[in-house]
Amino acid sequence: MPESSKAKPTQPRRLQDVKHWDIETDVAIIGFGGAGACAAIEAHDTGAETILFELSSASGGSTALSSAEIYMGGNGGTRVQNACGFEDSTEDMFNYMMMSAGEKGDKTKIRTYCDNSKAHFDWLVEQGVPYKNSMESRRAVMALGDDCLLYTSNEKAWPFNQHAKPCPRGHNLQIEGDNGGPLLMKILTEQVESRGIRVEYDARALTLIIDDARNVHGIVIRINQKEHHIKTRKGVVLCAGGFVMNDAMVKKYAPKLLKANYQVGNPGDTGSGILMGMGVGANTLHMDEGFISMPFYPPEEMTLGIFVNSQGQRFINEDCYHSRVGYYAMQQISDRIYLVFSAEDFKQPPFFLGADFAGTGDTIEELEHELEVAPGSLVRTIEYYNLHAAEGKDPLFHKAGEWLKPLNAPYAALDVTPGRGAILPYFTFGGLETLPTGEVLTPEGDIIEGLFAAGRTACGIPRTAAGYGSGMSVGDATFFGRMAGKTVAKQ
Amino acid sequence: MPESSKAKPTQPRRLQDVKHWDIETDVAIIGFGGAGACAAIEAHDTGAETILFELSSASGGSTALSSAEIYMGGNGGTRVQNACGFEDSTEDMFNYMMMSAGEKGDKTKIRTYCDNSKAHFDWLVEQGVPYKNSMESRRAVMALGDDCLLYTSNEKAWPFNQHAKPCPRGHNLQIEGDNGGPLLMKILTEQVESRGIRVEYDARALTLIIDDARNVHGIVIRINQKEHHIKTRKGVVLCAGGFVMNDAMVKKYAPKLLKANYQVGNPGDTGSGILMGMGVGANTLHMDEGFISMPFYPPEEMTLGIFVNSQGQRFINEDCYHSRVGYYAMQQISDRIYLVFSAEDFKQPPFFLGADFAGTGDTIEELEHELEVAPGSLVRTIEYYNLHAAEGKDPLFHKAGEWLKPLNAPYAALDVTPGRGAILPYFTFGGLETLPTGEVLTPEGDIIEGLFAAGRTACGIPRTAAGYGSGMSVGDATFFGRMAGKTVAKQ
Repeated sequence: MPESSKAKPTQPRRLQDVKHWDIETDVAIIGFGGAGACAAIEAHDTGAETILFELSSASGGSTALSSAEIYMGGNGGTRVQNACGFEDSTEDMFNYMMMSAGEKGDKTKIRTYCDNSKAHFDWLVEQGVPYKNSMESRRAVMALGDDCLLYTSNEKAWPFNQHAKPCPRGHNLQIEGDNGGPLLMKILTEQVESRGIRVEYDARALTLIIDDARNVHGIVIRINQKEHHIKTRKGVVLCAGGFVMNDAMVKKYAPKLLKANYQVGNPGDTGSGILMGMGVGANTLHMDEGFISMPFYPPEEMTLGIFVNSQGQRFINEDCYHSRVGYYAMQQISDRIYLVFSAEDFKQPPFFLGADFAGTGDTIEELEHELEVAPGSLVRTIEYYNLHAAEGKDPLFHKAGEWLKPLNAPYAALDVTPGRGAILPYFTFGGLETLPTGEVLTPEGDIIEGLFAAGRTACGIPRTAAGYGSGMSVGDATFFGRMAGKTVAKQ
Repeated sequence: MPESSKAKPTQPRRLQDVKHWDIETDVAIIGFGGAGACAAIEAHDTGAETILFELSSASGGSTALSSAEIYMGGNGGTRVQNACGFEDSTEDMFNYMMMSAGEKGDKTKIRTYCDNSKAHFDWLVEQGVPYKNSMESRRAVMALGDDCLLYTSNEKAWPFNQHAKPCPRGHNLQIEGDNGGPLLMKILTEQVESRGIRVEYDARALTLIIDDARNVHGIVIRINQKEHHIKTRKGVVLCAGGFVMNDAMVKKYAPKLLKANYQVGNPGDTGSGILMGMGVGANTLHMDEGFISMPFYPPEEMTLGIFVNSQGQRFINEDCYHSRVGYYAMQQISDRIYLVFSAEDFKQPPFFLGADFAGTGDTIEELEHELEVAPGSLVRTIEYYNLHAAEGKDPLFHKAGEWLKPLNAPYAALDVTPGRGAILPYFTFGGLETLPTGEVLTPEGDIIEGLFAAGRTACGIPRTAAGYGSGMSVGDATFFGRMAGKTVAKQ
């Protein structure tokens, strides 16, 4: 695409240099993914004239590329949770999400999210999003059937299960295959269109327009190779995604993610929304952080295996969520990470992982030798594991009994070392600091008037792969997109 | 201190609002610690009129509170390295420092630092900094005698020793006790004074002064409760320290550091320099990162012990640098971290650590029971360790032979779990993105005219506790302080 303008995201245009306005509106929303769609619907429904500007030629964003599971519950349980026999408590959900966010967690956002999570489910249903009253009970990265409810994070896994009563909160749309994302965005797009909300596609946001006090008055958008000055009477809402597709930014801010090799996102995730925010003095949070995953299941039988490092030590309970495994695999002082299992449990290769075999053995000693781990270390690890697995126990990492079974000869191991061929997906968590309302903050906590952000342009609920779960991203995007839409409309 | 002004660091003053200048100079340097002193000397020596503004009533900064070891070498070796029998290669130093910085390392800065490290030593000697041609051979956190050269990082430890030939590069000043910091700052202060460089003490920098293009033209400083507008013809150099003393900032950006409990820094390390930079559009890097330490030696005999987690597993070679131990202690999925050792090796308690005894035992089983680690796990760990230590080997983590000795009964363990009483020091690594010249960059890599930074206001050489070493902070501050001083004077 030819760059007809020298405008840079971090160099906002000064209000006094704007000689005329091409478009005037109450609210301009940048990006028509899950966050932008929800922001637009709520801004419109709250009474504000709203225009959506989308970089590409269609709605969707990264939400349409995802499974669009949404993490919801608490408040006694959603309709689906109840139908499946679960009464979810808000405090369990809150405690769980705080633990999953780790020390970087935003207590206020998580509190707001949990308190209003059941209402968010109801709102999505009102928009026409179909959720079946059924549960997917197999261990999966995503639901591939049309069943709704599933455990999508570490709820049942130690140590989380010691601090919050486990409850499934992942809500999958009623559609066969991994097609939740397109369906969700189709429904939300229809909702936008049915309201008559104006949408400008092929519209690239270039930079914000500010006055001398740094209040935001609009945004510069390139449409048909021409810069348009958009005046916003109430505000601009940046829902332009994260920066996973911007290699230079990932290398600069979150180089650890480059140990993984499969970008999760859409081509528009170039960080432009984050840069525009930074350009008008917004703070960023946790730009170093991101999701990194070790998608070793399905098949769920792989959970019967054990992960070991070069020291032949286990380092994780294998029944936790795949990004937690990925996170801790990255923390090992180790040249290699292996997934060791009994050949009899290897029903089919893990579809997503693409890992090569590193060794096999009729004895542990033989496998140990092939893997070149410290002599005697793997023997001791497996002896100890088997001794206790036979009794349904895992004294080291407390893997649940259903996944405990002594490893039997012949043995095999996959090489899942980051950087050695296995497919490890990644995306970014860092972004603009916002209040739950979507208002964007300076480093000193002041609100930047006229600017809002949601979705991965903001630093949201997900803050570490060590506690992340499926449904938290689209949950965060849709929930806080709505919050931003409501807030901006009330300005 | 009364806040007589509403000026905020992140709200720069607009040039057009400045009605008169109280002071005019070529260069204003903010902060009279190691970085500021070196910047001032070089700016003056390059021909620029220079004024130093210091918040407190004396020079010193965090450099004066440190041991002021400086990490130097390469280029065949410094005079001291050569006298002690070491010929250091620039490539070994470069490879080592790149490895120590991890994936966040700044190759250009490290290259510049290493290529010019011997020249930096010579410059310090020219200023009058005394270095004795002698070596401290005991394993220590800092040299407590007047000997100069010591290993201050992970040079000799696995896996670093596999990638760069070990060489001692920590240079300690010739003075008894831990008094290198005050002596270094006394000498640098005398150098500043002997040049007639003007110094304003009790002078609080409030915010930068910029034009509409965001070029920096000066700074607002409060002296005697009155705001002064300082016009800088060449530039402002921010050497105002990091943000370890600003609890709100640490909690917001680097909450993991709060698992430690002992702030390393001076009261002025409030992040004000970083905030001022952010206020004019500067980028920040790695605000999540910092130093965290497990100062379990001296006495060096404690290195004969082993660290274990709640799984009874070792996780580190105990002969590596204390911040690397601290870093990996924080990465364990573990309620407890213990230092286990033979009672016979416990000559005196580790002075800095302040850890309580967690258990003792005439047998490993007894100790294991008292520590409440997984049954049988510690027994296996120690059996394996002893088996190989008897042969001078550590197949798991490759601790060097001099520290390998089978553990004997009776056994004892210290509870060194972060947050349970042990004293774990911390400070911040994150700061403004700069070029090696000290020029400050926007998120898109543009230079902000008239603005420079060095010391911990910038994100410098140290980027992870996993590879940090003593001498890298004062090394970075003095070296890049000089670079910034030379650059600003040439504007």
